[in-house]
Amino acid sequence: MPDIAAVKAALSGQRIETPSWGYGNSGTRFKVFAQSGVPRTPFEKLDDAAQVHAFTGVAPKVSLHIPWDRVEDYAALAAYAKDRGLELGAINSNTFQDDSYKLGSVCHPDAKVRRKAVDHLLECVDIMDATGSSDLKLWFADGTNYPGQDDIVDRQDRLAEALAEVYARLGDDQRLLLEYKFFEPAFYTTDVPDWGTSYAHCLKLGSKAQVVVDTGHHAPGTNIEFIVAFLLREGKLGGFDFNSRFYADDDLMVGSADPFQLFRIMHEVAKNGGLAPETNVAFMLDQCHNIEAKIPAVIRSVMNVQEATAKALLVDVDALAEAQQSGDVLAANAVLMDAYNTDVRPLLREIREETGLAPDPVAAYAGSGWQERITAERVGGEQAGWGA
Amino acid sequence: MPDIAAVKAALSGQRIETPSWGYGNSGTRFKVFAQSGVPRTPFEKLDDAAQVHAFTGVAPKVSLHIPWDRVEDYAALAAYAKDRGLELGAINSNTFQDDSYKLGSVCHPDAKVRRKAVDHLLECVDIMDATGSSDLKLWFADGTNYPGQDDIVDRQDRLAEALAEVYARLGDDQRLLLEYKFFEPAFYTTDVPDWGTSYAHCLKLGSKAQVVVDTGHHAPGTNIEFIVAFLLREGKLGGFDFNSRFYADDDLMVGSADPFQLFRIMHEVAKNGGLAPETNVAFMLDQCHNIEAKIPAVIRSVMNVQEATAKALLVDVDALAEAQQSGDVLAANAVLMDAYNTDVRPLLREIREETGLAPDPVAAYAGSGWQERITAERVGGEQAGWGA
Amino acid sequence: MPDIAAVKAALSGQRIETPSWGYGNSGTRFKVFAQSGVPRTPFEKLDDAAQVHAFTGVAPKVSLHIPWDRVEDYAALAAYAKDRGLELGAINSNTFQDDSYKLGSVCHPDAKVRRKAVDHLLECVDIMDATGSSDLKLWFADGTNYPGQDDIVDRQDRLAEALAEVYARLGDDQRLLLEYKFFEPAFYTTDVPDWGTSYAHCLKLGSKAQVVVDTGHHAPGTNIEFIVAFLLREGKLGGFDFNSRFYADDDLMVGSADPFQLFRIMHEVAKNGGLAPETNVAFMLDQCHNIEAKIPAVIRSVMNVQEATAKALLVDVDALAEAQQSGDVLAANAVLMDAYNTDVRPLLREIREETGLAPDPVAAYAGSGWQERITAERVGGEQAGWGA
Amino acid sequence: MPDIAAVKAALSGQRIETPSWGYGNSGTRFKVFAQSGVPRTPFEKLDDAAQVHAFTGVAPKVSLHIPWDRVEDYAALAAYAKDRGLELGAINSNTFQDDSYKLGSVCHPDAKVRRKAVDHLLECVDIMDATGSSDLKLWFADGTNYPGQDDIVDRQDRLAEALAEVYARLGDDQRLLLEYKFFEPAFYTTDVPDWGTSYAHCLKLGSKAQVVVDTGHHAPGTNIEFIVAFLLREGKLGGFDFNSRFYADDDLMVGSADPFQLFRIMHEVAKNGGLAPETNVAFMLDQCHNIEAKIPAVIRSVMNVQEATAKALLVDVDALAEAQQSGDVLAANAVLMDAYNTDVRPLLREIREETGLAPDPVAAYAGSGWQERITAERVGGEQAGWGA
Repeated sequence: MPDIAAVKAALSGQRIETPSWGYGNSGTRFKVFAQSGVPRTPFEKLDDAAQVHAFTGVAPKVSLHIPWDRVEDYAALAAYAKDRGLELGAINSNTFQDDSYKLGSVCHPDAKVRRKAVDHLLECVDIMDATGSSDLKLWFADGTNYPGQDDIVDRQDRLAEALAEVYARLGDDQRLLLEYKFFEPAFYTTDVPDWGTSYAHCLKLGSKAQVVVDTGHHAPGTNIEFIVAFLLREGKLGGFDFNSRFYADDDLMVGSADPFQLFRIMHEVAKNGGLAPETNVAFMLDQCHNIEAKIPAVIRSVMNVQEATAKALLVDVDALAEAQQSGDVLAANAVLMDAYNTDVRPLLREIREETGLAPDPVAAYAGSGWQERITAERVGGEQAGWGA
Repeated sequence: MPDIAAVKAALSGQRIETPSWGYGNSGTRFKVFAQSGVPRTPFEKLDDAAQVHAFTGVAPKVSLHIPWDRVEDYAALAAYAKDRGLELGAINSNTFQDDSYKLGSVCHPDAKVRRKAVDHLLECVDIMDATGSSDLKLWFADGTNYPGQDDIVDRQDRLAEALAEVYARLGDDQRLLLEYKFFEPAFYTTDVPDWGTSYAHCLKLGSKAQVVVDTGHHAPGTNIEFIVAFLLREGKLGGFDFNSRFYADDDLMVGSADPFQLFRIMHEVAKNGGLAPETNVAFMLDQCHNIEAKIPAVIRSVMNVQEATAKALLVDVDALAEAQQSGDVLAANAVLMDAYNTDVRPLLREIREETGLAPDPVAAYAGSGWQERITAERVGGEQAGWGA
Repeated sequence: MPDIAAVKAALSGQRIETPSWGYGNSGTRFKVFAQSGVPRTPFEKLDDAAQVHAFTGVAPKVSLHIPWDRVEDYAALAAYAKDRGLELGAINSNTFQDDSYKLGSVCHPDAKVRRKAVDHLLECVDIMDATGSSDLKLWFADGTNYPGQDDIVDRQDRLAEALAEVYARLGDDQRLLLEYKFFEPAFYTTDVPDWGTSYAHCLKLGSKAQVVVDTGHHAPGTNIEFIVAFLLREGKLGGFDFNSRFYADDDLMVGSADPFQLFRIMHEVAKNGGLAPETNVAFMLDQCHNIEAKIPAVIRSVMNVQEATAKALLVDVDALAEAQQSGDVLAANAVLMDAYNTDVRPLLREIREETGLAPDPVAAYAGSGWQERITAERVGGEQAGWGA
Repeated sequence: MPDIAAVKAALSGQRIETPSWGYGNSGTRFKVFAQSGVPRTPFEKLDDAAQVHAFTGVAPKVSLHIPWDRVEDYAALAAYAKDRGLELGAINSNTFQDDSYKLGSVCHPDAKVRRKAVDHLLECVDIMDATGSSDLKLWFADGTNYPGQDDIVDRQDRLAEALAEVYARLGDDQRLLLEYKFFEPAFYTTDVPDWGTSYAHCLKLGSKAQVVVDTGHHAPGTNIEFIVAFLLREGKLGGFDFNSRFYADDDLMVGSADPFQLFRIMHEVAKNGGLAPETNVAFMLDQCHNIEAKIPAVIRSVMNVQEATAKALLVDVDALAEAQQSGDVLAANAVLMDAYNTDVRPLLREIREETGLAPDPVAAYAGSGWQERITAERVGGEQAGWGA
C-alpha cells in the first residue's frame, strides 16, 4: 500500500507551470469574448499568476510567450516575478502570426522567411538567458492546406536545418522542447503532426531535445498514456502542455473532459519516474478560458492536476504488479480503479492546511477581493490576448 | 447509358450559390492573413461574385451574412446585384458575435439575450422581404464548453420556442433552413449538433423548415451521402453548405479533400431527384480561403461541384440498378466507379464553349485583369472579414 | 442537497438487465478465446445470471438472443428463470448470421430474404408472448461495404416496410426498441447508422417504438448524453445497451473506458425522469468479456452502473440550476464535479448491507465457490458463444 | 511534362504482391460468409493467385501466412509457385490465434508464452530460407483491453527483446518488416500502435528492420502520405499493406474508399524514389473480401493500385515544384489535381495490350471459365479461412 507520508511529500513537491496567456483574452475564430479585469501587460499577468500560486502553493512558474510577453527588460520581468514568489518558466516561440508566415515559418519555401523564423527562435534563447528560463518550447503551426501545396520532404529538410541551428545555440542547462500537433491551423499536412515526428527530430538533435506532449494535440482515440510511457522509457519526455478536449484542440481546463484519462497519464508518469525532479518533466498548463473566469479556471486546473496526481500516487503498485504478472485482468484493473475512485480532495485539503494554505483555493480566491480589485483597476489600455 | 444531351442540359441548368464572406478575409483563431484587393463593402463583394459568375456561368446567386453585409438599403443592394447579372440568395443570421452571446443566443439562459437573438432573426426575414431572398439560413453557435454548464433539455425548449416564432414570421415563399454542426465554437455540447436534431425540429415546425447539410459539420467517418439520401426521401433536404475538410470544420475548397465523397453525395442528389428545380435544393458554398487567392478559389470550387455533378450524371443508373438487384457487389461498384473515373473536364469545357464562355474559367479569370484592378483600386478602407 | 434516503431508495430500486450472451464465449474476428466453465445452454446462462443477481441484488432481468437462446419450450425457460429469482427481459433478434443475409436482411434487395428476416422478427414476438417479455430489441447489421453496392433509399423503404409489419404484430404491453450503430459489420453504409434514423422510423411507427442507445455505437467524439437528453425530452428513449469503448464498438465493461461519460449519461437520465419506473427506460448491458472472467465482469459492470447512478443522484440539482441560470460556468461545472468526485462506494456498500447482501459483490462471488463448481461440472458439450 | 514512355515502363515494371489469405474465406466477428470455389490448400491459393497474375501481369508475388499456409515442404510450395509464374513473397507470422496468446505473445507477462511466440517467429525465418522469401512481416495483436491490465513499459521491454532475437536470426538478404496498428483486437493499449513506435524499434534494430504501412491501421484523420514521405526520407519504409477503410480496419479493396488518398500516397512514393527497385518498397495487398467475389476483387484491387500509380506518374513534377516554390497554393494544387483527374484507364489498357494481355482484366477473368471451374471442382474438404 502506498505510504501516505510519501504521497503527501510528492504532492507538496509537485510544480505546475501556468501560462501567461491563460490570463489574457482568448477565443475561437468566431469570436473572442473579452472579460473584465484582464491584464494589459506581462507584469499584470504575473500579478495574476501570483494569485494562483498564493492559493495553490504549487504553481510558482509562469511560461512566457514571445512576442505576446515582449518587454524591454527581461531581467526586470524576472525580478518582478521573483518579488512575487514566482519564477519565469518556458519561453514559447511564435512563428505563426507574422504576415510573412502565411505558408509556414521554418518550413517555408522561401529562405528569407525561414531566416526570419530562425532568428526569432534564437531571440527566444537570448530571452531565456536573460530570464534564467531553461526550456525553449517550440510549436510550429507550419503545414499546408491543400494537397500539392508544398513538398512534404523538403519541408522536413528545412525543419531539421532550423532545429539544428537553434539546438546549437542552447546553453548547457537549456533544452529544446518540441511540440507536435495533429492539425490546426494547417488543414492538410502539419510538419510536426505526431509524437513520432517530434521524437525522430529530437533523437537526431541530441539529449537536450525532448518531446512535449500537449494533451489536446492528438487524433481521435489516441492513447496518450502509451505515448507518455514510451517517451519516459526513452528518456525523451520533456514535459506536458496540459488542457483537455472533447473534439479537437478545444483547450478546455485540464481534467474537465476526461478526468480518467488524466489519471491514467499521471499513473504512467508516477510509475515511470516522471515525478522525480531529476527526470525534469515540466508540468505546464496550456489552455484557453474563453467563457469562464480566468484566474479561478487556472486554479481549478491546477487542482485537477493535483487530484489526478494524488490518485496516481495512491495506486497500490505492488498489488498491481502482482495482478498483472498473474494475468488477472479484472484484479489488475480493479487495483487501478480503486485509486481512481478514491476521493482525494480531503487529502489535498489536509496538505494545504498543513502548509498554511486555505483548504479550498477556489473559495479562498473568491473571497480574496482580487477579482473585484482588478476589475476596478484594470480599466483602459489594451487587454492582453493572442494578438491574432 | 446516360443521354449526353440531358447531362449537358442538367449541368447548364445547375446553379451554385457563392457566399459573400468567401470574398473577404478569414483565418483561424491563430491568425487572419489579409490579402490584397479584398472587398471593403457588400457592393464590392458582389463585384467579385459577378466575376465568378461571368467565368463559370452557373453562379448567379450570392448568400449574404447579417451583420457582415448590413447596408442601409437592401433593395438597392438587390438592384446592384441584378445590374451585374446576380441575385441575392440565402440570408445568413449571426447570433454568435455580439458580446451578449458568450453563453449562447436563442438557447441562452437569460430571456433578454434570447429576445435579442430572436429579434435579429426576425430582422433577417425583414431583409429577405427587401432582397427577395427565399431562404433564411440559421446556424447556431449555441452550446456549452463544460459539463453542467447549462441544461441540455432547457436549451432545447428555448431553441424550439425561438424557431417557432421565426417560422411563424416567414412569408409564403420563404423557408427556414436549419444547419447543424458537430462542434465548434462550443466544445462540450452543441445545441444543434447533428442532422437528427435539425430534422426533429424542422419536422415540428412544418413544411417550410428544412435541413441544411454543411459538408464539414460531421463527426469523423460520418457517411454524409446517407444523410443526404435520407433527407431527400423525407423531403427535408433544404440545401448544402459545401466545403471540404480533412479533420474538423476546415472550410477548405469543396472537393479538394475528398472528391470521391463529393461525387457520392452528388450521386445521391442526382438519383433522388435533388437536381430537379422543383425539389428546391440550394447548392451553396460556405468556405474560407485563408491562404489561397479568393476569387480563383471560388471559381475552382464551383468547377469542382460541376465536375462531381457531371460524374454523378454519367452514372449508368439502369446498369447500376440491375447489378444492385442481382446482388453483384463488384459489378454495382464498378458501374459507379466507371462514372467517377471518367475525366469530365472535356465535357464541361465543351458546355462552356457552347454557352459562349471560355473553356477554362481559372485561366480566363487570370487573364482578365480583374485581380490586378482590385489590388490597385481597393486601397484604404477596412477590408471585409468575419468581424470577429 | 440530495436527500440520502431518496438516493438510497432510487439505488435499491434500480434494475440492470444482463445479457445471456455475456456469459458465453466471445471474441474478435481474429480469435475467440474459450474460457472454462462457460454455459452450454440457455439454462446454464440463467444459472450464471442468477449469481450476478444474488450478489448485486439489482440484476433480476436477463435478455435473450434468438437463435442463440433457442429452446423448445420458452415458458419452461421463463419458469426456470422465475425459480431462480429472475425474469426474462428483452428478446434480441438475429438477422445477420444466416447464410442468406450476406447482403442484408430486412433491407436485402431480394424479397425472399426480407420475408425470411421479417418472419424471424415475428417469431421473436411469439417468443415474447411465451416468455412474458415486453421488449423486442432490433439491431440490424444491414448495410453495404462498397459505394454503389445497393440503393440507400430503396433500403430505407424496405426497412420501413419490415418495421411496420413487426410493429403491427406487437401486443398492447409490448414495444419495439430500435437500435442504431455507426458501422460494423457493414463498412460503407449502415441502414440504421445513427439515432436520427432510428428516431425517424420510431416516430412513424408510433408510441410503442422507441430508440435504444448502445453506448458503443457512435462516431468518435459523439456526445451521447445529448442524445439521451434529447430522446427523453421526446419520450423516445426506450433503453440502453451499456458497454464501453476506446475506439469502435469495443464492447468492454461499461464504465471501464470513460467513467465520467457514464456519469454524465446517468446525470441526464436522472435529471430528466429516466429513473422513474413509469418512464420505462431499460438499463441493459450488452458487452463481451473476451479475455476477462465473465461472471465477475458482469458483476463489476453492474456495480459500475450503480456507481455512476449514485453519483448522478448526488448532484445538487438546485445548486446546479442556480449556477446555470446565473451563467456561472465554473460554479455549475463544480456542482457536477463535486458529485462525480465523491467516492460512492461506501454508500453502495451500506445499501447492500441494509438489504442483506455482502458489501463487496466481487469478493463475495469469488468466495462463493461457484466459479470452481462450474469449471468442474461444465465439461463436455458445446460452450455457448455467438455461433458465428 | 511526364515522359509517357517512362510512365509506361514504370507501370509495366511495378509489382504488386497479393496475400494468400485474400483468396480464402473471411468475415467479421459477427459472421464469415463462405463462398463457393474457395481454395482448401495453399496450393489452390497459388492457383488463384496465378489467375490474378495471368490477367494483370503485375502480380507475380504471393504473401504467405503461417500457420494458415503451413505445408510439409516449403521448397515444394515454392516450386509449385514457380511453375505457375509466381514467387513466394513475405512470410507473415501469426502470434494471435494460439490459446496461450490471450494476453499477448511477445509482450505476454509470462516468459513461457513469449518463448513460444519467438520460436514461431524464428520458424518463420526458417520458412523464408526454404521459400527464398526476403521479407518477414510482423504484426503483433499484442495489447491490453483494460487500464491497468499490464504494464506498458514492461511490454515494450519484452517486445524489444523478442525483436532483437529475431533480428539476429535474419540472413543477409532478409529483412524484418514491423507493422503497426491503431487498435484491434486489443481495445485499450496496442503494443505497436503507430508508426512512431515501429520506427523507434526498427531504428534500434538496424538497417534490416523497416516499417510497414497498412493503410487501414491509423487513427481517424491521420495523414498517411505524410508518414510515407517521412519514412522514405529516413530510409525506413519497407512496404505497404494495401486495403481501404471508411471507419476502422475495414480491410476493403484498396482504392475503393478513398481513391484520392491512394493517389496522394503513390504521389509521395513516386516523388521520393519509392518506385525504384533499389528502394525495395514492397507493395502488398492485405484485404478481406467478405461479401464480394474474391479473385475478381483482387484483380480489381491490383488495377486500383495501378491506376493510382499511373496518376502519380503523370504529375508534372517540374510545374509542381515551380508552383510550390513560388507559393502559389492554387496552382500547385491544380498541378496535382490535373494528374488525378486524368482518366488513366486507356493508358493502362494500352500497356496491357502491348504486353499481350487483355485490356480489361476483370472481363477477361470473367470470361475465362476459371470461376466456374473452381466452383465445380473445389467441393468437399475444408475451405481456407483465417482459422480463428
